Amino acid sequence: MRFIYTGVRVRDLQKSLRFYRSLGFRVANRGKMEHGGVYVQLKMPFTSQMLELNYYPKGSRFYERYKNGSELDHLGFSVEDTEECLKRLKKIGARLAVKPWSEGDATLAFVKDPDGIWIELLGHTRKKSQEQNR
Amino acid sequence: MRFIYTGVRVRDLQKSLRFYRSLGFRVANRGKMEHGGVYVQLKMPFTSQMLELNYYPKGSRFYERYKNGSELDHLGFSVEDTEECLKRLKKIGARLAVKPWSEGDATLAFVKDPDGIWIELLGHTRKKSQEQNR
Repeated sequence: MRFIYTGVRVRDLQKSLRFYRSLGFRVANRGKMEHGGVYVQLKMPFTSQMLELNYYPKGSRFYERYKNGSELDHLGFSVEDTEECLKRLKKIGARLAVKPWSEGDATLAFVKDPDGIWIELLGHTRKKSQEQNR
Repeated sequence: MRFIYTGVRVRDLQKSLRFYRSLGFRVANRGKMEHGGVYVQLKMPFTSQMLELNYYPKGSRFYERYKNGSELDHLGFSVEDTEECLKRLKKIGARLAVKPWSEGDATLAFVKDPDGIWIELLGHTRKKSQEQNR
């Protein structure tokens, strides 16, 4: 068996598509399930990780009242500059989940997608002195 | 920004590691977070999708009482033969979530990981007559 994508459930497909497109994702594939659900598979340049948005209308076999849980800890993104990226995402309406902090040579922060899914921004902290030593 | 992995929260790291190893994953990287959490990054051959297991002990910054929610719809796996794979996973203790059904030229089924995360088995149904027409 081969791990091919992560499927996240969305409550508003257009809203989620706008959000994930603004992160750099492009639609690779989409289709309708027999029970009425819709899937949209997303990819972005320079990585083959695939994200699938799953939307189930009321009456579809897998419809349920949406509730936030613990299973999906976060979707991890590597970024050039955490603070810079955070500013950009806030401008497009992303809510802050965890404000930036540094740990080792990484600076991390989390924002939320339209359904509350945590989006990790993992940037590498480079101090000038470190750069000069390289 | 570059999507690099999906992080799922686990309640029992050893149990989850056993489960995901039995699916074919191997540990690519692991480490400890400053607040006491542990991450284990998993990869499998022939795919670059990465899965991260996140464990937070009580007292860690991100610890919470685990609850199943809706965000993570499923982790998608492509398989050769859905029924065959399902049998194998049941033998290693995976619980059935949705019994196999066919849709178009695909046969799908879902099992649960130790924390209840849905694992999709997506196999392609090939009828003999179809094969002969190729």
